[in-house]
Amino acid sequence: MPVLRADELQGLARQFFLALGSPPEAADRVATSLVRSNIVGHDSHGVIRIVQYVKAVRSGRIDPRAEPEVEQEGQCTARVNGNWGWGQVAAWRAAQLAVAKARQAGIAGVALYRSNHVGRVGEYVEEIARHEMIGLAFANNHGGAVQVAPFGGRAARLSTNPIAFCAPTSGFPILVDITSSVAAEGKIRVLRNQGKQAPEGWLVDAEGNATTDPGVLYTTPAGALLPLGGALGHKGYGLGVMVDVLAGALTGALCSHPEAKTVGNAMLILAIRIDAFAPKEHYYEEVDKLVSALKSCPPAKGFKEVLLPGEIERRLAEQRLAQGIEIDDETWREILQAAQELGIALPA
Amino acid sequence: MPVLRADELQGLARQFFLALGSPPEAADRVATSLVRSNIVGHDSHGVIRIVQYVKAVRSGRIDPRAEPEVEQEGQCTARVNGNWGWGQVAAWRAAQLAVAKARQAGIAGVALYRSNHVGRVGEYVEEIARHEMIGLAFANNHGGAVQVAPFGGRAARLSTNPIAFCAPTSGFPILVDITSSVAAEGKIRVLRNQGKQAPEGWLVDAEGNATTDPGVLYTTPAGALLPLGGALGHKGYGLGVMVDVLAGALTGALCSHPEAKTVGNAMLILAIRIDAFAPKEHYYEEVDKLVSALKSCPPAKGFKEVLLPGEIERRLAEQRLAQGIEIDDETWREILQAAQELGIALPA
Repeated sequence: MPVLRADELQGLARQFFLALGSPPEAADRVATSLVRSNIVGHDSHGVIRIVQYVKAVRSGRIDPRAEPEVEQEGQCTARVNGNWGWGQVAAWRAAQLAVAKARQAGIAGVALYRSNHVGRVGEYVEEIARHEMIGLAFANNHGGAVQVAPFGGRAARLSTNPIAFCAPTSGFPILVDITSSVAAEGKIRVLRNQGKQAPEGWLVDAEGNATTDPGVLYTTPAGALLPLGGALGHKGYGLGVMVDVLAGALTGALCSHPEAKTVGNAMLILAIRIDAFAPKEHYYEEVDKLVSALKSCPPAKGFKEVLLPGEIERRLAEQRLAQGIEIDDETWREILQAAQELGIALPA
Repeated sequence: MPVLRADELQGLARQFFLALGSPPEAADRVATSLVRSNIVGHDSHGVIRIVQYVKAVRSGRIDPRAEPEVEQEGQCTARVNGNWGWGQVAAWRAAQLAVAKARQAGIAGVALYRSNHVGRVGEYVEEIARHEMIGLAFANNHGGAVQVAPFGGRAARLSTNPIAFCAPTSGFPILVDITSSVAAEGKIRVLRNQGKQAPEGWLVDAEGNATTDPGVLYTTPAGALLPLGGALGHKGYGLGVMVDVLAGALTGALCSHPEAKTVGNAMLILAIRIDAFAPKEHYYEEVDKLVSALKSCPPAKGFKEVLLPGEIERRLAEQRLAQGIEIDDETWREILQAAQELGIALPA
């Protein structure tokens, strides 16, 4: 498997988006976002997407030149229209706007709609936390691409509807970035491609029978992922519905339902300035004590230590920034082929 | 088992709080809140708490005359200091303040600290949704009463840290009111009192061994509840940490850690005015389509239909408002005894 430095990979990805007609700033943004996903270990949201994005631009689904527009702007609220350009550009704009408004008002909400794939949702709340604020984000698939069954149901009705949260501490930020389903669809796709079985309790087939065959998501009629929680799946389902209302209905996008044919991401982003509520010193003192209490917890059988939310990503980032990023052979082959078609020079 | 009408039960509960020295408005508020929990079927948060509250007032932990104070008020943010009075009074004040601010600003966040038990967290987001807004709430136990192990750990480090969400639809509101642990502590207490076993995957004993014995939460050293998610418990754990930061550190209260001796509730409440982001018509159209899509889902084996989040509570409420509320014999005996001690007249 080829191993590339993060900056090499970024430079390569950037060339694709320039070749597709994006302005340099947008090309940089999308490339940075994809490579950052690889750096923190979320390869399903990394450069594997380049080829998919090339196809989406060619089919007209992504407009590589579109600029996001700010609509319905208030002192602490706004809606960003992605104009079906790059999701990473529109979502970044939404996060920056949330930070600017929360700096003034203490709290801000920014809605995003008509956006393509934003990539790793955690990226936007991380950016908010970098400004000493707490970030929260809720995203759906703009109404389309439903793959998750409601609790007590046997057909897909919701998208995987992630929740992301990032909060600063005196050390590394706490980062939560989770789907309300048992897993992201990308994980099932990887299992299928590797010829592996899914864990029990993740999937049902089109008749509603429990299965470990990841292929059931890709048949017609299709099976479904289950909501987080197993026998307590009403909780994961509740979170999924919550996300769908916040990201789908409130933003001006669409909720998950059969009439919604649009696929992309819609998202609500919240930024909360810490000292609008409590003195910063108090906040850091308490968060740091929470971190110490969690890290001091004796490990369960089969575990070496208790990790903080986001700690795995941080460790992987250190490793990959030092040692480079492995790209699997199939992804690399597809990237090389697409590069040739677009006349892109490859790293030596 | 005695069966009382909701208004009878409310009148009885009110007398207790008056007898303890609370002003009439506060006595009404706490009584209404407790009985509302019984009405929607959350008996663990209902009038069973009267006797516990009487003890807490006598021990000085609840000040029945304390008034909540609004501190650090901005245009769309505020902090409410409960002054260790009734949690239901302080949290109601916080919810009303969030509604008033969101009406002006579009979005508002109100922090609550130094509050006793607020009861059912869902009550406050329901109240926000009644004003055609979306309500979100995150609560911890003010740093104390930790009962939940982190993922990969075997000792309690977090409280059950609930998330509540309520959103209006053209019909009944969608209500999500869930702990980030497998269950609320009250459920384990009920199982222990009934001599029953807990489901597998809910509890570990003080050595970290999986157990179905609900007694392990009440030994010294104690065992722990597990986070929501089973093998995917990193997700429930992530949500629990998120709630602890929002409710504990941001509000001026305490996060869950060994130095935190305070027990009560700290909470962050958010109110979001729908038309600050998208036209109301669009919101209702999309939410209603989501509701139809979910209700049309074919049921899984063992289920008759797919329920919306909050639908069980709504059905129970219809039933209990029509047929009265059953109080278990032990709770009734305790209430009668406490009534006698306080010189309270009982319903005929």
